[in-house]
Amino acid sequence: MHTKGEMLYEGKAKQIFLTEDPNVVLVRYKDDATAFNAQKRGSFSRKGELNNAITTLIFKYLEGKGVETHLLEKLSDREQLVKKVEIIPLEMVVRNYAAGSMAQRLGVEEGTKSPVTIVDICYKKDELGDPLINDYHVLFLGVATREELDTMYALTLKINSYLQELFEKMNIILVDFKIELGRLSDGTIILADEISPDTCRLWDKDTMKKLDKDRFRRDLGEVTEAYEEIYNRLTAVLENQI
Amino acid sequence: MHTKGEMLYEGKAKQIFLTEDPNVVLVRYKDDATAFNAQKRGSFSRKGELNNAITTLIFKYLEGKGVETHLLEKLSDREQLVKKVEIIPLEMVVRNYAAGSMAQRLGVEEGTKSPVTIVDICYKKDELGDPLINDYHVLFLGVATREELDTMYALTLKINSYLQELFEKMNIILVDFKIELGRLSDGTIILADEISPDTCRLWDKDTMKKLDKDRFRRDLGEVTEAYEEIYNRLTAVLENQI
Repeated sequence: MHTKGEMLYEGKAKQIFLTEDPNVVLVRYKDDATAFNAQKRGSFSRKGELNNAITTLIFKYLEGKGVETHLLEKLSDREQLVKKVEIIPLEMVVRNYAAGSMAQRLGVEEGTKSPVTIVDICYKKDELGDPLINDYHVLFLGVATREELDTMYALTLKINSYLQELFEKMNIILVDFKIELGRLSDGTIILADEISPDTCRLWDKDTMKKLDKDRFRRDLGEVTEAYEEIYNRLTAVLENQI
Repeated sequence: MHTKGEMLYEGKAKQIFLTEDPNVVLVRYKDDATAFNAQKRGSFSRKGELNNAITTLIFKYLEGKGVETHLLEKLSDREQLVKKVEIIPLEMVVRNYAAGSMAQRLGVEEGTKSPVTIVDICYKKDELGDPLINDYHVLFLGVATREELDTMYALTLKINSYLQELFEKMNIILVDFKIELGRLSDGTIILADEISPDTCRLWDKDTMKKLDKDRFRRDLGEVTEAYEEIYNRLTAVLENQI
């Protein structure tokens, strides 16, 4: 049994607490939502609960495929126990279709399928607006080595193919998503943070309805309902597999 | 003898004219200066003349090192004959030290030496503000193939090492520079456009005085004088070599 200790960190959507085990921390998912570098703020009932449940299901699915994640155990509606990692301050963004900031940057229409799987790296730094950077900048900043970057790219692409397979069964287009990776004390790089409608763009394959955080970003309404829809389809698909 | 035909294109700092030879165009250097995506505009006497002279000297130096360039011949104070190429709409930016947009993007001090040679790729598209992009975006846009990109990186790094060698002898720090590459009709990728104080950051090694377009961008004065200084040191060094 792990007891919730001092709060180590509070992010936009989650809080992290120490436990009596130095290698384990407790994650608490909040209902708060932010967008556009926290210029837009909101809160949605059950969001924390749904993201906790969705991330738990997805991380367990990925563990089943051999991808090491920080997840140890879902403790309660809003809480997870996870391995303590040193988060690498880089967002690994995978794009199967152009959307959001990439569509704007390149001046292309949202929804254009990419002939190659795109991996963008953004530097996690609120005061800079999480800018897009390249591999050379990563080495300049010293936040990861060339060897670590290679590992991170390979891991990110592997996760993309497993997620595409999963969402395909849910009749959903995985447009893009971001992950965060962390180092265990021995330097092993594993999947951390979350994978949820907060961190993915997910479009219904038949109706193209957005079932993700863009409903909040773009004031489309039915935010909680979209997250519930993802949770329900995910449960249905993963239960069928057992 | 090539005669100046119809104007093919007018850029911010140069005009391009057809000649009677379909494989040859005439470049005319203007005195106009623009910065910050043409939001700032100016004009400096002798700038066109100096950039023509400087680019000619540098391109001849690079040809001597085995780097193919578009330059055929300096025709007059402001005019060059060059091979006609299809310009690849990517700016290859080499950074030996952090400065300008990179220093801002990463939140680091201007003048920080990079432990690795940085190559940034910007998508040449005025209406998008020439955004930084990555290799995947290049492939998405279809403006170069993976093989061409590899050639472009190798060529860019080779040019950087020859330029560093040259500017070292001029007692100047080559902070950063951008080049543009073009395809000959057979697909060969060669150096095009210009290399001048408009396209480089050049700091005097002893005084750290800026001898480049930042004098215009940042209203530091003595713009023409700085370009003249570069021309004079370049002439001195290249004449010594003969």
